[in-house]
Amino acid sequence: MTKIRISPGHRSITWDPSRSLMDQLLENGIYLDNACSGRGLCGKCRIRVVSGEGTPVTGEEEKLLSREELDSGIRLACMMEPVTDLELETVGGEKKGKVLTGGYIPEFQRAPLTRMMPLTVERQTVEQQTPFEDVLMEKTGAVRVDANALMGGSRAPGEYTAVIREGSVVDIVPGHQTKYYGAAVDIGTTTVVCSLVDMETGEILADASEINAQKTFGLDVLSRITYEMEHPEEGAGKLQRAIVESMNAMIGEVCRETGVRRESIREITVAANCTMLHLLLGIDARPVGTAPFAPVFTGSRNLLASDIGLKAGERAALYCLPSVSAYIGADIVAGAYVCDLQHRKGNVLFIDIGTNGEIVLASGGRLLSCSCAAGPALEGMNISCGMRAADGAIEDVVITADGEVERKVIGDEAPCGICGSGILTVTRELIRTGIVRKTGAFAKADAFDEEDPRRKLIEVEEDGKRSFRLLDGERSLRITQGDVRQVQLAKGAILSGFMALLNRAGIGMEDLDEVLIAGQFGAHLPADSLTGVGILPKGVEDRMRYVGNSSRTGAYMALLSGVCRRDMEELAHHMEYVELGATEGYERLFSDCLIFPGESGGRREHRNRRERRERRECRERRECSNLRGGGREGSEGSCEDRKESR
Amino acid sequence: MTKIRISPGHRSITWDPSRSLMDQLLENGIYLDNACSGRGLCGKCRIRVVSGEGTPVTGEEEKLLSREELDSGIRLACMMEPVTDLELETVGGEKKGKVLTGGYIPEFQRAPLTRMMPLTVERQTVEQQTPFEDVLMEKTGAVRVDANALMGGSRAPGEYTAVIREGSVVDIVPGHQTKYYGAAVDIGTTTVVCSLVDMETGEILADASEINAQKTFGLDVLSRITYEMEHPEEGAGKLQRAIVESMNAMIGEVCRETGVRRESIREITVAANCTMLHLLLGIDARPVGTAPFAPVFTGSRNLLASDIGLKAGERAALYCLPSVSAYIGADIVAGAYVCDLQHRKGNVLFIDIGTNGEIVLASGGRLLSCSCAAGPALEGMNISCGMRAADGAIEDVVITADGEVERKVIGDEAPCGICGSGILTVTRELIRTGIVRKTGAFAKADAFDEEDPRRKLIEVEEDGKRSFRLLDGERSLRITQGDVRQVQLAKGAILSGFMALLNRAGIGMEDLDEVLIAGQFGAHLPADSLTGVGILPKGVEDRMRYVGNSSRTGAYMALLSGVCRRDMEELAHHMEYVELGATEGYERLFSDCLIFPGESGGRREHRNRRERRERRECRERRECSNLRGGGREGSEGSCEDRKESR
Repeated sequence: MTKIRISPGHRSITWDPSRSLMDQLLENGIYLDNACSGRGLCGKCRIRVVSGEGTPVTGEEEKLLSREELDSGIRLACMMEPVTDLELETVGGEKKGKVLTGGYIPEFQRAPLTRMMPLTVERQTVEQQTPFEDVLMEKTGAVRVDANALMGGSRAPGEYTAVIREGSVVDIVPGHQTKYYGAAVDIGTTTVVCSLVDMETGEILADASEINAQKTFGLDVLSRITYEMEHPEEGAGKLQRAIVESMNAMIGEVCRETGVRRESIREITVAANCTMLHLLLGIDARPVGTAPFAPVFTGSRNLLASDIGLKAGERAALYCLPSVSAYIGADIVAGAYVCDLQHRKGNVLFIDIGTNGEIVLASGGRLLSCSCAAGPALEGMNISCGMRAADGAIEDVVITADGEVERKVIGDEAPCGICGSGILTVTRELIRTGIVRKTGAFAKADAFDEEDPRRKLIEVEEDGKRSFRLLDGERSLRITQGDVRQVQLAKGAILSGFMALLNRAGIGMEDLDEVLIAGQFGAHLPADSLTGVGILPKGVEDRMRYVGNSSRTGAYMALLSGVCRRDMEELAHHMEYVELGATEGYERLFSDCLIFPGESGGRREHRNRRERRERRECRERRECSNLRGGGREGSEGSCEDRKESR
Repeated sequence: MTKIRISPGHRSITWDPSRSLMDQLLENGIYLDNACSGRGLCGKCRIRVVSGEGTPVTGEEEKLLSREELDSGIRLACMMEPVTDLELETVGGEKKGKVLTGGYIPEFQRAPLTRMMPLTVERQTVEQQTPFEDVLMEKTGAVRVDANALMGGSRAPGEYTAVIREGSVVDIVPGHQTKYYGAAVDIGTTTVVCSLVDMETGEILADASEINAQKTFGLDVLSRITYEMEHPEEGAGKLQRAIVESMNAMIGEVCRETGVRRESIREITVAANCTMLHLLLGIDARPVGTAPFAPVFTGSRNLLASDIGLKAGERAALYCLPSVSAYIGADIVAGAYVCDLQHRKGNVLFIDIGTNGEIVLASGGRLLSCSCAAGPALEGMNISCGMRAADGAIEDVVITADGEVERKVIGDEAPCGICGSGILTVTRELIRTGIVRKTGAFAKADAFDEEDPRRKLIEVEEDGKRSFRLLDGERSLRITQGDVRQVQLAKGAILSGFMALLNRAGIGMEDLDEVLIAGQFGAHLPADSLTGVGILPKGVEDRMRYVGNSSRTGAYMALLSGVCRRDMEELAHHMEYVELGATEGYERLFSDCLIFPGESGGRREHRNRRERRERRECRERRECSNLRGGGREGSEGSCEDRKESR
């Protein structure tokens, strides 16, 4: 039997030749990046062979790993198999990201569904043998006592506290206790945020945030659904365990930080996109990733936290916010509710920019919503030197008039890649300076005068394609033609979704009263970047407002108020979902929206033959890249036009 | 470490000197009779030492074991401890009893709360992405789909069957299935009966019955409550596990017998006395056994079978019928309901004779109920040669005119003891023949002529007390003065309860229209035995009717009809509980009711001084015996006047 030993952690596993090394590492809790679900496409599942011999380096590894990396023993866990016993080392520990937990919270009436009611059960007489249960109901006004609440422990006369939820006594604790807590959780595809809340006061006592542990099964929702498809026996279970364990750890963290006992957490609420909710509850997520994209459920869910293995108080309740459709999840419903879209006057656009861009347009009493397959480029993924917004990531770029490239780096470390906001700003700069044309194609270096400082910023790669020299030196970084195309696809997707909703509502850009930008990623994007690359039109810049992590805020409000839950359920029911793929003329609209704003602004350009050809090429690349991004090749209707939601 | 090896089974345990041998044997699944909770009072926990040395024989063992038994290595597990490694043998395997599963079932409308609804989920379109959940609700009319029902397994378009309970989809199974099953369970303190029911047709497919596995923790409810008191950490858990495992085994048995899959059992209903229900649910039963006898609950209970470890279909429901008080349990509510007491014209008495006699009097729209501490004598316990109604038990006795003793034995085996109906009939015969006087005292042998054949039937024991020679020969059996006193106490308790209810209702014996005899034990008692010893007055003999195991029947009806459940809940609410101990003049009434009917019938006898003294002695013995039967000596108000219910 071949043994594999992994450090750090010094875990040992016995090699099972029937399955891939990556699968076995993942199963044993060795978390690897796995953006392409083990296809040898993303090059993220790097490990280093410290000793022992693996199978020969594959073509995919040659392509995705540099000579130096290969020489230092770096391999891809999805490609290599052991020949002898191996000693492996994981490469590059996770860096702590900047995560947005705060944001705008509207005023609302706190009315938690769970209440604590201290009471004293007196000794009965032989004449009046009133059962404990009846005393409880009389003193609390509850109409029911759950059998489980009566179980375990003494029920002699004395002091107790009844935990009451919607007219039922759901737990009984000894002594008089009034303090109790709740956890409001926002499960993003990338990041999970958990807030510990004092249920009496509504105060947020602590926040924790973690990278979603499911990332090892794929970076976007489709990769994870694909993982579930490819592992029909145990895939869903593993994805569920990953997020549940992650939530348990975060709840543990906020409890430790505040000295709150985990047992006194009585309610947990979760906002997330529809896929994340399926995966959390262990409900078949495959229909979400397969045409016709009919999810198993969109309604809110009430269950026990323990039903899915969450560790909290005895019979703590878990509430999952309602979704609208497979691609307008509870995170967006929460955002729309927090921003009070259903009651706003005028025309208001709500947009959550992530791997999917979800857009809600409130207009004339209607709430129209759509989801656009932006792709992960705006989060730094699928970009040659892309990374998440972590220490060492370039998050802002300016090209000065004399051709200098100024870079702002997160954590003031040496730059090692570029994150979403960085790629957006660099694209804005490339457009502004004319290095990239409106069509998205790099200008030729000789299009600029010999003296023009821009000339030296353009490089020609081995394959003849042009790129931008973002950073030279020990670690050289380039923005390639492919990278710009990724941003262009994202821009086209979001802008066309936006336009499609305006068309559907019969209004124009000038009729918009407000544009609300929600979510983790949006908050890091200055308005001039969004309009600079044309994700949003220049004209709305002065009407933009950032609302922060409105998904987490929605979970927080649901935690503290049954009325908010009911209102959100009604709102979800009221929201109309516009399936862009099924909308007439959408392909043409998308094609139009691919054009970057020129130096002359966003004015409709004359389309010459070359531009048309370029657009066609771009579309083709888009289809191809969508398939690679997680779609199941060859399976009917699967995954096209679908990307992660947040 | 001292090792103990037990056969049959060849189990080995390591001796823990801090706890009794009996406790350790029980914990290791060696079931011993333990009527007195390890006090050395009942002599039932016999084991045989095959090899090795134990501590010296105690005074209690000298008293409770015969010379022959001691010589053959028989010891009491509650008294002995090992000195060296021991090899032990259990004594006398459990014999299969005769258990009553049938009985009268009234007509009722079947309307099960759980229904199976086959349906087909069609493939959706991109234009109409209706979630699986919504299709389900639309097709079934359910208003809710439990999150747990959606979990696990594919939810692709196809054929499914929704399991619907009270408007909620609680489970979803693949394919079209309409067959589903239920289990109706009657948990008696002594015997558990389980019926497998076809929920579509209402047919009872199979019955199983077992001795209640909790018997090793005490034969009556108070011994078991005492066990819980003495083992506050783990006692309740052990008692619960014993009955749950027993129910799981019985469900397995009826499933095997019928080829029904356990997974297709969707509902379980349980009728039992109040203590058994507390113990089943793992709810603190100690208040039931402690003055003022206020139970933790009397209401019906709805929970999941899996909540207490019952193994049945996914999220199968468990319903426990409602009780009235600590000593009028759901078994009696079920019986009263099955007999339609709430709607009967005239005055009807319902009586369930067991270790407790529970009596319900329907009169003038009221339902009065009481419970009398009959003691276990009528079930063959606390009788010197008593045993349960199993093979080898004498169940009927006749003393012929020429002084011959005719015995009827269960299973036509050699007689080895006497069961409840036997002790009742022998007492009837002793009274009828004047061998025992109305006061309960044995006649002196010389009270009879030299020629009188009765003379030879009376023997004088070593302690000077008289006894009846029931059987001579290899296995000699005697009915002692103490045995007769036990029957007398039972008789006095039941008759006085009966009279107390009549008094409370303001009616007399002659006003009774019907006397219904319920339960396992009652069904084995011929009317002339009941009236012969004066448990019921001679006058009601022609108005008596046996209704069988009406507790099981109630569980069966509740299984098949939500209406029956609601009706029983209302009935339980309507029933009035009369606490005999708190009833004025009860002690006097009890005292009067102790008198056996004389040769001259039940006529009120002239009380001379001797009779009064005898009655006083009898009362004193009763208090003493009640304490021995399981009461916690020295603990306030605990257990007096309380004995097992069925």
